[in-house]
Amino acid sequence: MADLTNIRALTFDVFGTVVDWRTSIAREAEAMLAPKGVSLDWGAFADHWRQQYQPAMAEVREGRREYVVMDVLHREMLDGTLEAFGVAGLDEPEMHRLAMAWRRLDPWPDAVEGMQRLKARFAAVALSNGNVALVLAMAKRAGIPWDAILGSELVRTYKPDAGIYDSAPRFLDLAPSQVMMVACHPWDLDAAKGRGLRTAYVHRPLEWGAGTERPLPEAGVYDVSVGNFVELADVMGA
Amino acid sequence: MADLTNIRALTFDVFGTVVDWRTSIAREAEAMLAPKGVSLDWGAFADHWRQQYQPAMAEVREGRREYVVMDVLHREMLDGTLEAFGVAGLDEPEMHRLAMAWRRLDPWPDAVEGMQRLKARFAAVALSNGNVALVLAMAKRAGIPWDAILGSELVRTYKPDAGIYDSAPRFLDLAPSQVMMVACHPWDLDAAKGRGLRTAYVHRPLEWGAGTERPLPEAGVYDVSVGNFVELADVMGA
Repeated sequence: MADLTNIRALTFDVFGTVVDWRTSIAREAEAMLAPKGVSLDWGAFADHWRQQYQPAMAEVREGRREYVVMDVLHREMLDGTLEAFGVAGLDEPEMHRLAMAWRRLDPWPDAVEGMQRLKARFAAVALSNGNVALVLAMAKRAGIPWDAILGSELVRTYKPDAGIYDSAPRFLDLAPSQVMMVACHPWDLDAAKGRGLRTAYVHRPLEWGAGTERPLPEAGVYDVSVGNFVELADVMGA
Repeated sequence: MADLTNIRALTFDVFGTVVDWRTSIAREAEAMLAPKGVSLDWGAFADHWRQQYQPAMAEVREGRREYVVMDVLHREMLDGTLEAFGVAGLDEPEMHRLAMAWRRLDPWPDAVEGMQRLKARFAAVALSNGNVALVLAMAKRAGIPWDAILGSELVRTYKPDAGIYDSAPRFLDLAPSQVMMVACHPWDLDAAKGRGLRTAYVHRPLEWGAGTERPLPEAGVYDVSVGNFVELADVMGA
C-alpha cells in the first residue's frame, strides 16, 4: 500500500459517499406527495432527479451558464422530474420544501462513526458540489461532524473541474499530497488524483439501489479501497 | 431584550473573542526565545505583534495591496516585533514556526463549553479575519467545535469591510437578521449591525492583559451583552 503517513486532511465527497441520497429522497418525496394521492416508484423518482445532476453541472463547468449553487439546480431539476412522473399541482412553497429535501439526507450507517474516528487524526473536510448552506444544514440534522466545509461556491465551479481539487490544498495550506480525497465515484477520484491528491475509494453498492452494483476498481488504482468509513478509519490508523 | 427567536446561526469573531491570543502568544514566544537566552516582557511582545494587526489589514481593505492571508501578515508583522525588542538570529524555519504560533492559541476557559451548548441549537460558524487553514488548525488543536469556517480569503478582504458581513448570510442562505455576530470588539459588532446582522457582545476584559479593561457598551447598543459563552448559551436558550 502507498505511504500514507504524510496525509493531514481528508476531503470527502458528500452525495453518495457520506449520505444515502436515494433512500432519503425517496422518503422525502413520498412524505410530501403520497398524502396528495400520488403513487409512484419513489426510488425511480429519486434516480430521475439525480440523473439530471451531471448535465446540469456541465452547463456551468463548460461555461454555458454562470455558476449557480446546487440548491438552485435541485429546484430546477425538480420541475423535469415531476413532469416525467406526471405529478402536478404543487405550489411554490411545496416545490421549495421538496427541493430542499437534498438538505435532509441520512448518512450511511458507518459514516458518522468512521468520521468521528478519522477526525481525531485528520481534518475532516467536505469537498462537495453542494453549497455551504446545503452541506451545513445536512450536517446539523444528521450529526455529520465536519471540521470545515468547502462548498463549490467558494470556487464557483463543479467537480470534476480541476479548480475544485486545487482549491482544497490551498484553503488548507497543505501540499496536494497531504490531502486525500474520499469518494465512491471513480470520476471524482480520478480527477483528484490528476491534481496530485491522494485517493480513497469507498464502495457504496447501494447508491443507486439494489442490483446496480458496479465493479470494484482494480487494485492499485487508488491509494486506498475500502467498504465503508469504519474500514477507512482502520486503514488510516485513526 | 430584542426578539431573538428567529436566529439560526451564530458567527463568531475568533481572536480575542474565542481565544486568548495574548497569553498564548506570550507562552509560545517564551518557549522559543527563552532557550536562546532572550529575556523580555512576553506579554508586551504579544501586544506589540498584535498592535500591527489593524494597520496591516487596512493596507488590504483600502486597496493599497492585494489580499494576502492572515498567516502571511503574522509572518510579516513578526519582523518588526522582533526588531522592536532587539531580538535577532532566528533562522527562517524558526521564524515560520513562531509566526504559526497564531494557530496555537488557547480558548478562553468558557469558550468550548459554551459553544458545545450553542451548537445544539444554532450553527456555530467562524467569521474570522484568519484564513481557513489558520482557524482550522487552531480548532483541531484546541477542540473548538466549529460547524463551518468562513475565513477571510473567501471574500478576500478583512473585517470590518462590509463584504465580510454580507457574505455570511449569503454562504449560510439566511437573512441577515437570522445571523448573530458574536464578538468582544465593538468595531466588529458595529459593522455587523450596520449590515443587518444581530449582535452579541462578549466582555473579554483580559484580552490585552490585566488593567486594560474597557467599559461595557451601553445597554441596548447590541442585542445581547454577556460575560462569557456559557452566559451566552443561557441567554440564547441553548
